[in-house]
Amino acid sequence: MIGLEQIGEIARSTPSKIVLLVIDGLGGLPHPETGRTELESAKTPNLDRLAREGICGMIDPVSPGITPGSAPGHLALFGYDPLKFTVGRGVLEALGIDFDLKPGDVAARGNFCTVDAKGIITDRRAGRISTEECTHLCRLLEKVTIAGVEVFVSPVKEHRFVVVFRGKGLSSQLSDSDPQRDGLPPKAVSPLAAEAAKAAGIANEFIAKARAALADGYPANMVLLRGFAHYPDFPKMSAVFKIKPAAIASYPMYRGLAKVVGMKLLPTGATIEEEFFTLSANYDNYDFFFLHIKQADIAGEDGDFERKVRVIEEVDRALPRLIDLDPDVIIVTADHSTPAVLKGHSWHPVPFLLRSKWCRRDAVEEFSERACASGALGRFPATEVMPLALANALKLTKYGA
Amino acid sequence: MIGLEQIGEIARSTPSKIVLLVIDGLGGLPHPETGRTELESAKTPNLDRLAREGICGMIDPVSPGITPGSAPGHLALFGYDPLKFTVGRGVLEALGIDFDLKPGDVAARGNFCTVDAKGIITDRRAGRISTEECTHLCRLLEKVTIAGVEVFVSPVKEHRFVVVFRGKGLSSQLSDSDPQRDGLPPKAVSPLAAEAAKAAGIANEFIAKARAALADGYPANMVLLRGFAHYPDFPKMSAVFKIKPAAIASYPMYRGLAKVVGMKLLPTGATIEEEFFTLSANYDNYDFFFLHIKQADIAGEDGDFERKVRVIEEVDRALPRLIDLDPDVIIVTADHSTPAVLKGHSWHPVPFLLRSKWCRRDAVEEFSERACASGALGRFPATEVMPLALANALKLTKYGA
Repeated sequence: MIGLEQIGEIARSTPSKIVLLVIDGLGGLPHPETGRTELESAKTPNLDRLAREGICGMIDPVSPGITPGSAPGHLALFGYDPLKFTVGRGVLEALGIDFDLKPGDVAARGNFCTVDAKGIITDRRAGRISTEECTHLCRLLEKVTIAGVEVFVSPVKEHRFVVVFRGKGLSSQLSDSDPQRDGLPPKAVSPLAAEAAKAAGIANEFIAKARAALADGYPANMVLLRGFAHYPDFPKMSAVFKIKPAAIASYPMYRGLAKVVGMKLLPTGATIEEEFFTLSANYDNYDFFFLHIKQADIAGEDGDFERKVRVIEEVDRALPRLIDLDPDVIIVTADHSTPAVLKGHSWHPVPFLLRSKWCRRDAVEEFSERACASGALGRFPATEVMPLALANALKLTKYGA
Repeated sequence: MIGLEQIGEIARSTPSKIVLLVIDGLGGLPHPETGRTELESAKTPNLDRLAREGICGMIDPVSPGITPGSAPGHLALFGYDPLKFTVGRGVLEALGIDFDLKPGDVAARGNFCTVDAKGIITDRRAGRISTEECTHLCRLLEKVTIAGVEVFVSPVKEHRFVVVFRGKGLSSQLSDSDPQRDGLPPKAVSPLAAEAAKAAGIANEFIAKARAALADGYPANMVLLRGFAHYPDFPKMSAVFKIKPAAIASYPMYRGLAKVVGMKLLPTGATIEEEFFTLSANYDNYDFFFLHIKQADIAGEDGDFERKVRVIEEVDRALPRLIDLDPDVIIVTADHSTPAVLKGHSWHPVPFLLRSKWCRRDAVEEFSERACASGALGRFPATEVMPLALANALKLTKYGA
């Protein structure tokens, strides 16, 4: 496949506009009674119209058979090979709470846990303390100071928190302190590369001081850290694709992923209607829009087939606002499937439609898994979505003479 | 995908014959009035027969969304990954005028330009002098001598020419002398690698002597060079695929590309009928034929939908001559799409058909973009055409035990 560098050489800035509408977890599986997927069950006259006027296919977010997390699913749609461009656990955790990571920051996922008098872990989750308690304890930990480094501690949910070290020359090549089971003491954080010795010392100093600060915190009297990761320094979409990209997403994780690739984050209301309104309100100022609808994925994760159907129908009702803007390229797809019957992400390819003046329309008459599987785009990797989008917006010049 | 080396290990020479018919720029887009592409508008009983008797699909010449130039489009069809096997600008320019490049040659694209008394460029194209004037000036420049190197200067068109340096140990890692805009002096050619110092010296000496030779040539009183490139030393098709390949092409660029991969260039008349006649006349002497039809691409580039339709129909009328030879494998496809409505190459996948005794026929009833999109070969990279051709000619043994 063509790489970002090669794309960068043929991409050019033009006034044409692209809207990438991602209905998170859109792909589904048939309802056992009706034999129809969520998308096939929903009444979607506007999506069907776009499918009729466009060209369809099925995308594999990461690779056939692979169930993607949110990060690889989205990075692939943004044109970044998710097997090459990886985002570490600690960073994802920080992005998920809207923490404003800077280049060079090292983030880790933290658990509050319980240790006995000998320092042996008796509960890796400290009895799943409340989020309120977690927030209180994070405030305590924020008082920990380490020479030459800024330390940030932010609550996530229940026993989970994020710690971020900000300073010069910090490596993230660090082992976990979490032994991943009870009955053992926390491990010392070790450097996994020569240059990580300083960062390991800082992590261990933080852990020691956290233990002291939490001495009276039973059951949350210790911390476990894992997934140390650097905020990634990915090429920016504006530099690679010569576009001015904006993200409309109401969930922190997706805003974070959009930030990683250099999109401008547009303030938006959280409902589907509000997100479409944000698109209209900012339409003149950017030439690429990532519009993220989270609700379908949540319904899928909850195993709520009917709610997922209703979310899809709500998106469909909001679509005319987008269609009326008449972007040069409209793409509707997802980052992965979340079939309600599986109550979670899955490996199934994702329906994809692209409408543009130059798309070479196919015979597909409706937007559904079954119909898209017979679309003229066939089945293809999600990393090819951006080249296709740019091509259809006439933003790519010829490769080779 | 399987690489050339691996193919080389399983390829074997057999008497079976393959004809690869490339209708340059064949793929199209619907006419706004009829909704049918050029190929869908043309009456093509013979192509439709081959589609019925064969197996069809759609190929991506370089990568989805990428608009290929002639070189990457053809190299992919010949089995060479166009993202790995690249041909430099200077070499393409030389191939385009049938210049007989040898291994080791360094070629550059030249412009005649105008400089003022201070040596500042006032017109990068010297007022687009006539091709006759260009030819005359190239003869002047051919008198430039440089110790230890042969220098060839050949006119291309208007202000464009090609310069070729032939000598031992010349690197092509050289910067352009063309600053790409007026108002600046030409740049000195610099070595981009340590071993290129000698070649840079030669290029700069040529430029200085050219300036002296052109002193009275106003407006063409200076030269600009760019795109220095080595004649590529690609593996030859005969060595990799164990075939004896011949090319029938009436345009220099395609003969040049065929030469780069080691095909024998057959002398031919320029009409479609004459090219098919050349195939018949040489049929016994080779086992692989690349038959190139340029006219469809030209009509597409001209935006002449009707002419492109007529070219396709003319190819169809000539086809029985090919079919009567009864090659073991017939392939009809293109190097890229050139939709008349876009007046240029495009990124759209290209219809593909393969007929052989062993092809596992599919349900496709006609040769068209729409029909091929539902073919059993699906959508696949053009680099897989050669393995498919060889397999269907029973020229590949088993991979692995």
